[in-house]
Amino acid sequence: MKTNTSNPSLIAEGNSETTADTAQLISNDDASTSNYGQLNNHANFHDFDDDDLHGSHGVRRRQPLQKIEPGSMNVLSAKYESLDYDTCENHLLLDEERKRGYPFVVWKDIARWFIILLIGVITALIAFIIDICIEQFSNIKYKELKKSVDKYVLMDKLYIPYLLWVLSNICIVLIGSVLVAFVEPVAAGSGIPQVKCYLNGVKVPRVVRIKTLLVKAVGVITAVVGGLAGGKEGPMIHSGAVVAAGISQGKSTTFNKDFKIFQYFREDHEKRDFVSAGAAAGVSAAFGAPIGGVLFSLEEGTSFWNQALTWRTFFGTVVSTFTLNVVLSAYHGHPGELSYPGLLNLGKMEPFPFQFYELPVFILFGAIGGLLGALWNYINYRLAVFRIRYITAPYLRVIEACLVAAASATCGFLMMFLLNDCRPLGEDPTKVPLQLYCADGEYNSMAAIWFQTPEASVRSFLHDPIGSYQPWSMLLFVACYFLLSTWTFGLAVSSGLFIPNLLTGAAWGRLLAIAMQDMIPYCTINPAKYALIGAAAQLGGVVRMTISLTVIIIETTGQISNALPIIITLVVAKWTGDFFNEGIYDIHIQLAAVPLLPWEPPPLTHNIYASEVMSHPVFTLRTVENVGHIVELLKVVSYNGFPVVDPPLADETEVTTYKRLRGLILRSQLIVLLQNKLYNENANTAWSNFNVNMNMFRKEYPRYTSIDKLEISEWEKTCTIDLRPYMNPSPYTLPHRASLPRLFRLFRALGLRHLPIVNDVNEVVGMVTRKDIARYRVWRHRGHMGMEELLLSSEI
Amino acid sequence: MKTNTSNPSLIAEGNSETTADTAQLISNDDASTSNYGQLNNHANFHDFDDDDLHGSHGVRRRQPLQKIEPGSMNVLSAKYESLDYDTCENHLLLDEERKRGYPFVVWKDIARWFIILLIGVITALIAFIIDICIEQFSNIKYKELKKSVDKYVLMDKLYIPYLLWVLSNICIVLIGSVLVAFVEPVAAGSGIPQVKCYLNGVKVPRVVRIKTLLVKAVGVITAVVGGLAGGKEGPMIHSGAVVAAGISQGKSTTFNKDFKIFQYFREDHEKRDFVSAGAAAGVSAAFGAPIGGVLFSLEEGTSFWNQALTWRTFFGTVVSTFTLNVVLSAYHGHPGELSYPGLLNLGKMEPFPFQFYELPVFILFGAIGGLLGALWNYINYRLAVFRIRYITAPYLRVIEACLVAAASATCGFLMMFLLNDCRPLGEDPTKVPLQLYCADGEYNSMAAIWFQTPEASVRSFLHDPIGSYQPWSMLLFVACYFLLSTWTFGLAVSSGLFIPNLLTGAAWGRLLAIAMQDMIPYCTINPAKYALIGAAAQLGGVVRMTISLTVIIIETTGQISNALPIIITLVVAKWTGDFFNEGIYDIHIQLAAVPLLPWEPPPLTHNIYASEVMSHPVFTLRTVENVGHIVELLKVVSYNGFPVVDPPLADETEVTTYKRLRGLILRSQLIVLLQNKLYNENANTAWSNFNVNMNMFRKEYPRYTSIDKLEISEWEKTCTIDLRPYMNPSPYTLPHRASLPRLFRLFRALGLRHLPIVNDVNEVVGMVTRKDIARYRVWRHRGHMGMEELLLSSEI
Repeated sequence: MKTNTSNPSLIAEGNSETTADTAQLISNDDASTSNYGQLNNHANFHDFDDDDLHGSHGVRRRQPLQKIEPGSMNVLSAKYESLDYDTCENHLLLDEERKRGYPFVVWKDIARWFIILLIGVITALIAFIIDICIEQFSNIKYKELKKSVDKYVLMDKLYIPYLLWVLSNICIVLIGSVLVAFVEPVAAGSGIPQVKCYLNGVKVPRVVRIKTLLVKAVGVITAVVGGLAGGKEGPMIHSGAVVAAGISQGKSTTFNKDFKIFQYFREDHEKRDFVSAGAAAGVSAAFGAPIGGVLFSLEEGTSFWNQALTWRTFFGTVVSTFTLNVVLSAYHGHPGELSYPGLLNLGKMEPFPFQFYELPVFILFGAIGGLLGALWNYINYRLAVFRIRYITAPYLRVIEACLVAAASATCGFLMMFLLNDCRPLGEDPTKVPLQLYCADGEYNSMAAIWFQTPEASVRSFLHDPIGSYQPWSMLLFVACYFLLSTWTFGLAVSSGLFIPNLLTGAAWGRLLAIAMQDMIPYCTINPAKYALIGAAAQLGGVVRMTISLTVIIIETTGQISNALPIIITLVVAKWTGDFFNEGIYDIHIQLAAVPLLPWEPPPLTHNIYASEVMSHPVFTLRTVENVGHIVELLKVVSYNGFPVVDPPLADETEVTTYKRLRGLILRSQLIVLLQNKLYNENANTAWSNFNVNMNMFRKEYPRYTSIDKLEISEWEKTCTIDLRPYMNPSPYTLPHRASLPRLFRLFRALGLRHLPIVNDVNEVVGMVTRKDIARYRVWRHRGHMGMEELLLSSEI
Repeated sequence: MKTNTSNPSLIAEGNSETTADTAQLISNDDASTSNYGQLNNHANFHDFDDDDLHGSHGVRRRQPLQKIEPGSMNVLSAKYESLDYDTCENHLLLDEERKRGYPFVVWKDIARWFIILLIGVITALIAFIIDICIEQFSNIKYKELKKSVDKYVLMDKLYIPYLLWVLSNICIVLIGSVLVAFVEPVAAGSGIPQVKCYLNGVKVPRVVRIKTLLVKAVGVITAVVGGLAGGKEGPMIHSGAVVAAGISQGKSTTFNKDFKIFQYFREDHEKRDFVSAGAAAGVSAAFGAPIGGVLFSLEEGTSFWNQALTWRTFFGTVVSTFTLNVVLSAYHGHPGELSYPGLLNLGKMEPFPFQFYELPVFILFGAIGGLLGALWNYINYRLAVFRIRYITAPYLRVIEACLVAAASATCGFLMMFLLNDCRPLGEDPTKVPLQLYCADGEYNSMAAIWFQTPEASVRSFLHDPIGSYQPWSMLLFVACYFLLSTWTFGLAVSSGLFIPNLLTGAAWGRLLAIAMQDMIPYCTINPAKYALIGAAAQLGGVVRMTISLTVIIIETTGQISNALPIIITLVVAKWTGDFFNEGIYDIHIQLAAVPLLPWEPPPLTHNIYASEVMSHPVFTLRTVENVGHIVELLKVVSYNGFPVVDPPLADETEVTTYKRLRGLILRSQLIVLLQNKLYNENANTAWSNFNVNMNMFRKEYPRYTSIDKLEISEWEKTCTIDLRPYMNPSPYTLPHRASLPRLFRLFRALGLRHLPIVNDVNEVVGMVTRKDIARYRVWRHRGHMGMEELLLSSEI
């Protein structure tokens, strides 16, 4: 197994010691997913009427021999397997449909709603547990630290509480970091890029396992309690996705347990729908934003729009918010009071009036947010490349996480100590007011910000009265937290970037409000208003979401009146940021070399033809095929789909001779057929086996045995299989003269995994997979655009 | 031209006198859109391996000879043309791409944003004008009536103001009704079903014309001012769609003016995107709901999900709301104050606390809303069928509208007069307090409700203090308004159903709150809260939207805290209503026999094959074709797409002989080619015409000349055309053994218009169009489901 050196925050390498059971999986993925990639040689297979229309204009075409640098943005990994959303309409499916009829359709529909209900409830409960753990542990930690500060400040031995702080941070972060780095590397980061890839149709290994969920939950608690500049929102979204995958499939690979329920949902298509609902439920639980959850799932993840699915997703998010509100209100001592404002993460905002002439201010805020966001993304990107190149070993990653934990404490301590920003104790919401060097009856305002979770700090910036903070301390805080948060995202810990960016933005928003107040002293400027606008602008500049982010902010502050300013700010932030680079999630996805399909085909590519894009020669199977040949083929090549063709005439024996396409069969299907020994000695008694049904395939889904593990005797190899009852008899195909946009649209709209390319007489001449299409990528930079062709590599 | 007897509210018949200029269009549509429908004879064209899997289980298959009743729900009209979202990738397109390059792509992108900006601004201005007209005219009308009542109540001659009221209603409604019935019948009703059909890919004739917009605007003003139980929201959405279509195409058929701008957006795909954004901008302007607008467009209309399009749509809705707020705030005397609560249609709601134990109450409200909504839909459906059968002549439709106008006034008058529900004058928001028989210092509360626009009445129910209304008068009002509103929807006037249903719901919500207060006297029940929940439930029960409706209600009341109860209520209302019948828009679409494609293929149809669905024989053209043959073919058959096949061998001459598919050419393309005389005397000098470009086709879009109007000499008929540079060289195809769900998904996902069906050697054996697929429809009723096959008819 090759050492995986891709972006650690998205797909981290497995450690040979602790992840021995997953190593097989990865190597299996490695082997089976290099779909046609390596063999793709861009041969000239044209028989068009007019070759003069060929030629690429303005395409940056990479040379295959160019050396691939780790951390390159221009490579696609051949390692990722695709999901297959196309239904295999073989005879078994028809049989099942006929036997079960409409009552089964109704029953499946009811089961779907029930599963969504479960997903909503469980996601909310997990979010609740994470919430409470973070709150309780943070309280304990900061109260102890306060005691220590109060004690040693009199003795002038402040280095003792400082060391205590550093040490506690490191110890707590160490737990999560070790878990992430050694046990489940895919649990690192926010999880949103991984979920986005999954929903786009790329199978990211181990991303929806229960083990990942456990590591993620513990990881995010340690990260936030450990004082890192990270949030819990991303991990909660990921948790929702895992819960959805687990419940809908009715089995767990981690616990090796099959509950034998919901078997009929064991296919990529159904699973994806549930995962998308789960991610939405996660957003909903993280922010108390049911509508924002649905929109997030649509804006960031979903490739397909379907009304029924959206309604189910909506139901899931409502259940999730409702459950969370019920348990949280009980926890806060207001049982059943579902409109208790303490249930909103950012606290209930007051409506603020705004005027027509404030429009330039909102646009300015948006532009600043876009610029700062682009800078944040750029720094984070450089850091990520550095990590991919040099911080590859798990222990190094743990050390880095501890370093950041120490740095966070140091930053906080220096700011509290050096900026003696004293404020009188009032009706301030801070839980741990620290006196430090302030006079009696005063507290250190920076300590109030640092001695709580980042989420509570955002609340402070959004709700504290005018004059709670000094401009200089705010400025230093912005600079400090901006750098800390961009350093933190991508560490070997589970933490998101929503809250840190909201905090940075709220801080500079408040700072600008103070500055404006100084410039226009005759009118009162509400700092809370601009803190909110700043928070939205900064986060929008980093993640580049608009609609879902607007709704999330509205729902989490419980105030719709502020919608228009927030929307304007977010749109400007997105435009400004997009001028420089892409959103942070897309940057990380590109660094991980994931073959993500964008929304639209690259423009001006109608002169790139399927014959250039496809890989060939194609390995085909005959409708009635020899078992030995199948075994041989599966062992030799690593492809996942094989066109089934008419039996060749007596004088044709080579597999590469083009044949009429009859269907498409998947590697997984062939393996299940071989496993169940569904072959006959006599080729003429085809499909006599009537007790074969779809459940045979569902039982194995999604992890099929490797061909090397099957034991097939020499005698068995002389048998034959009639593939016709099992194959997909009418796969979507395109002629070799179809253009790239045409391929792209078919692939994207239908969520395909394999697309056979045929010639004029319906003979298979090539195969197109996701990577062949994802290789063509459009770039936009500072108003210019063009198209580039990425390299495919099996090394990354 | 046949008299069109379909549902008048969706597609009304043209009158031969006043719509002479549109008659040609319809007959053109009639002729050209019976795509393969009539010829479809379900022949047995199978060559499967196993015929035993055939047979339909549980399919209600209608007999073609069955008589079609007007108003039947089980027929599809062959009259509707489809839109074509597939790009024709011919050489002209490639040429254009190569010449213009990436700067053109960037420029087009900028132009798209600019058009969206214009759409937002203009839609908002139209909404503003409609708003102001309604408000001003209503004020004048009710003030005059009040004067008259005040005068004659003392003389005991109340029949005079009553007659005045009836007369004024009839006169005002008459204007709009005549316009709708005689000038532009497609402007009837809310326009939402038509826009929904358009976005689904069905060309509803004249639906996005400027004439329609004008009639609609005048119609909606007269309808609301005329006292009908109708709202302005649906028409505003339709207006947005018309504005979008007009601006994006840069030309107007009504004014016969081509501005020669935005020519490159003259294709179905681009136009649909703009129309979808325009509809969203309309919602946004109607409700002040930018997010709700985007969601409405997604939930009700869009067939495709695309991130970039959604962002543009969002931008459009924001511009629309912003513009409307700017002009409205100036109008209300608070210029620039964009958070002025008077800008919200339903007034700013206060947040209301709610408890866990209220959940059953919300569910109960949802169930009642679902039941009442289903009943409303049923009554309206029966009325619509009655209208289709008996009220077909335009003058009858005008009389019916006037009758309803008189009935509305009578209802109001009787309620005011008989229920002497007096309340003390307080800080009540009613503009026209009518004393009638009340004591001095009191006013008649029913008069307050009837003497204002329905929108203002909703505001009254949502905001009036406890005890403003008596239970019995509320009950009578609910019954009365329920019947009036269901009678009004479908009349020959332009009016929507949002506001009337919100009003009915708010009334029964308030009524239930009073009842609950009586039952539980020891706690204070806020009637406003339940009025809002009731309004949501009733509207949800009728239209069956969930997410978009939630957001619209939240945005239009400016209060997010009430989200959770509203959501729960709406979900329950939808479930309850769906148990009995479909949403009102779907009912009207089915009555109009529109071949709307649902979201998913019907279940259990994997055993229906393309060979059963397709129409055949197919009329094909050769790659180099004789002009006379093309003209003949276009005159004889009415199909819109022709497969282009390899030239036949010497002994094959019949057009029905199957040939290898080389491409697909549209009727419209052929007509443009003939119009421009792009043919050669000598068949060998193919495509020498280098100054031919895409603009030739764009200039004619979307209304092409009829073949009968082209003059082609006998000599010209001996020339030949090389179709290859113009045809689509690689249309999507499917094999004849592909199943219906496969056909469906391809068709739906890619927005196709024609799908050639090929055999195993890539010869065309049939064609599938939208109607062939839309014929298979799933039905669900009271927990049961099944599949039915609709009839195709060219008579409806």
